[in-house]
Amino acid sequence: MNEQLTEDGRLKHLLTLDGLPARILTQILDTAESFLTVGDKEVKKVPLLRGKAIFNVFFENSTRTRTTFEIAAKRLSADVVNLNIGTSSQSKGETLLDTVANLSAMQADMFVVRHSAAGAAHLIARHVAPHIRVVNAGDGRAAHPTQGLLDMFTLRRFKGGFHTLRVAVVGDVLHSRVARSQIHALTTLGCPEVRVVAPKTLLPRDVESMGVHVFHKMEEGLRDVDAVLMLRLQNERMQGARLPSAGEYYKRWGLTPEKLKFAKPDAIVLHPGPMNRGVEIDSAVADGVQAVILPQVTFGIAVRMAVMSMLAGGQ
Amino acid sequence: MNEQLTEDGRLKHLLTLDGLPARILTQILDTAESFLTVGDKEVKKVPLLRGKAIFNVFFENSTRTRTTFEIAAKRLSADVVNLNIGTSSQSKGETLLDTVANLSAMQADMFVVRHSAAGAAHLIARHVAPHIRVVNAGDGRAAHPTQGLLDMFTLRRFKGGFHTLRVAVVGDVLHSRVARSQIHALTTLGCPEVRVVAPKTLLPRDVESMGVHVFHKMEEGLRDVDAVLMLRLQNERMQGARLPSAGEYYKRWGLTPEKLKFAKPDAIVLHPGPMNRGVEIDSAVADGVQAVILPQVTFGIAVRMAVMSMLAGGQ
Amino acid sequence: MNEQLTEDGRLKHLLTLDGLPARILTQILDTAESFLTVGDKEVKKVPLLRGKAIFNVFFENSTRTRTTFEIAAKRLSADVVNLNIGTSSQSKGETLLDTVANLSAMQADMFVVRHSAAGAAHLIARHVAPHIRVVNAGDGRAAHPTQGLLDMFTLRRFKGGFHTLRVAVVGDVLHSRVARSQIHALTTLGCPEVRVVAPKTLLPRDVESMGVHVFHKMEEGLRDVDAVLMLRLQNERMQGARLPSAGEYYKRWGLTPEKLKFAKPDAIVLHPGPMNRGVEIDSAVADGVQAVILPQVTFGIAVRMAVMSMLAGGQ
Repeated sequence: MNEQLTEDGRLKHLLTLDGLPARILTQILDTAESFLTVGDKEVKKVPLLRGKAIFNVFFENSTRTRTTFEIAAKRLSADVVNLNIGTSSQSKGETLLDTVANLSAMQADMFVVRHSAAGAAHLIARHVAPHIRVVNAGDGRAAHPTQGLLDMFTLRRFKGGFHTLRVAVVGDVLHSRVARSQIHALTTLGCPEVRVVAPKTLLPRDVESMGVHVFHKMEEGLRDVDAVLMLRLQNERMQGARLPSAGEYYKRWGLTPEKLKFAKPDAIVLHPGPMNRGVEIDSAVADGVQAVILPQVTFGIAVRMAVMSMLAGGQ
Repeated sequence: MNEQLTEDGRLKHLLTLDGLPARILTQILDTAESFLTVGDKEVKKVPLLRGKAIFNVFFENSTRTRTTFEIAAKRLSADVVNLNIGTSSQSKGETLLDTVANLSAMQADMFVVRHSAAGAAHLIARHVAPHIRVVNAGDGRAAHPTQGLLDMFTLRRFKGGFHTLRVAVVGDVLHSRVARSQIHALTTLGCPEVRVVAPKTLLPRDVESMGVHVFHKMEEGLRDVDAVLMLRLQNERMQGARLPSAGEYYKRWGLTPEKLKFAKPDAIVLHPGPMNRGVEIDSAVADGVQAVILPQVTFGIAVRMAVMSMLAGGQ
Repeated sequence: MNEQLTEDGRLKHLLTLDGLPARILTQILDTAESFLTVGDKEVKKVPLLRGKAIFNVFFENSTRTRTTFEIAAKRLSADVVNLNIGTSSQSKGETLLDTVANLSAMQADMFVVRHSAAGAAHLIARHVAPHIRVVNAGDGRAAHPTQGLLDMFTLRRFKGGFHTLRVAVVGDVLHSRVARSQIHALTTLGCPEVRVVAPKTLLPRDVESMGVHVFHKMEEGLRDVDAVLMLRLQNERMQGARLPSAGEYYKRWGLTPEKLKFAKPDAIVLHPGPMNRGVEIDSAVADGVQAVILPQVTFGIAVRMAVMSMLAGGQ
């Protein structure tokens, strides 16, 4: 049984896209469509979650992601409480579950959780009071489902659907929760060809079991794809043993206009941000006509509004 | 004259429970009762403090306490501004009173203040503009009145009242502002037997002048009590000269199921959190049926709503 | 053409007071007058910016300034999102413009920006989407326009106008964005005599080109002035090569009651805060009847409400 769904099959928590049925993914994307115009209105608010208390519980710092959830919650008229736990109770020796039990007792309606440990959001979801909803905003290398969803929203928006798409996920797949969420969503939504393009040292061993085709050369991996989903190369990897140097990485794996030419002429380029220009992506691509990186951000608000309203708004 | 009361005897500031009349304490507890159900409603808000500006002025970091005040204020529809002063003006050389005068000039209605120095909240209350209300959220070792009040609320809720209660406050009384607030409240509200149970090195010298009975053995101190109010042993104490080790402390003073058996069978166990499991409290007790530690948190929101609305809502 | 104005001459961004026409400055001050009473009302809110999203984007930490903008925005019923960027994306290697492009894509209506680099707010204003408004909350040594405006508001309020005023700006002009904004505003608003009073080492070389008279002695510089605008001496300067010591500075440049006697008997004293008592200002002056330092803070809220509502409220 799927711990993310209620007994009658509705979304209860959003922890991972792994195992979530296509029906739910599509419902989230459709709901997000309806919120897309809220941001353009004179008064950018809908009263769906008025009086609900949403806690952004960030055990790992991330201003950007926290902000998108905060904006999404405020547009739904919820009350938002931001907690940077890294600097607080945890350092006082309290356990994760005690922290969560305490926050539950403050009559929260929803936790948006980021944690450096894979599985943290699942653990929390299993221990909160029954009425509390949990959204995973990134757990270790495991999952970042709202990022995966906003990428799907972007693909559908620009490409019309998934059933004829050839998509390449490029870069540090090994350490990327974003890549995992993207791959699960793409395969579930019927994308016929999902590729990962990366050096061997940046691929998980069992990656092919996720239903992807592996490429170790950009020229081959990008050939005739409809979309390139670039991954961020984290700074700490650049000094690591798995990579020669940022400059070398750029030469082989950085998305330049030349390499992008292997893709279809109308291929789009996504990136979850923040970008390392001149490392995994060239500025000419990042700022080029094929990049849809900023629309991704805008769509991310709508997608998070959709998830939150489906979870707490009584659907 | 009591600086916490107006001339006609109503609550003006909440700085300490020391000297606050039973009538006021009871009024706060009664008001909190009426707020207890707000958290269960679909829309968790009442408009009592709409348009009021409440400043959480924390000179000492505390995500947990700050969050409970923030939630309480938002449920009352107030605007909340969080200020972590530790990292700001104070480090620029400004005096405490200048900081407070400045915040006053921003037309705040209420300051919720935490400070490492005993008396800080009193000092601030004496210097703010006459319309501004001050709530002490913890000052040094002196007082933590809303914690004391929520403990009283919890006792009354589970035990029906104070007049027949035998209560034990257990642990590091010396460094605990919570213990001081609890003892003042218990004696004021007519609790006939308040005990403190602690090693001599963790008791203030004059503790008996507060109207408590001192015990140096758990077996004796817990015998036939109706409630055990555990105190947190702060990490920095564990390495201190006053204690052998965390393990030794646990052996003698940690609340285990065995030691809890000395109390009445229906005795309840409170703890202000965050807990050090395996130090001052055993997990079997913390998670056991006698623990009311999570209800304390829920009640804490209602109690803080009560205090804030009495201070700023025109009563 | 002035990048701060729309084609039909209305305020579009507030980046600097340098070059802003007197008409706009006066409009801001007049609008602020109308907001001054909002803070005294039972419900301190007007619905002018309801549903607007205002981002406080602080690349440089400042609790005090951030708080005044937050309060002003909340009184206008806007949704406020606080971002301390110093600790986030920037440290992940993202460029300033990428950070801003991302925040823009979150459908912000206004950025309030503080940055340690002069020109940062201008750079941002040139790159945001056309509907987004930018307010400079301090950029390097260049400008702090809302501080300059609130000082003008204070002067006008206590002195009735600018056309007969003799004003002295005293202290570390060299490093002060406040001084620059004050001088531009004073000369634009028709103040006939603006003086700067400072040691040579704390004056910019070209200061006279700004239309001020330079004095190197307090006795002469303060003689018969209507207002003394004290500047803060930043801690890091006190150890610098440009100054002998804080004690020496106080002796020569600290505003004592004795030195203040050179000014007109009804001269007022301003200070942007936080004050270094006993360094640039004596407590007898800071707390004296001629000081209008706390009214400055109160007026600052009204001035920031005026700027924000003019920018985002459709005027």
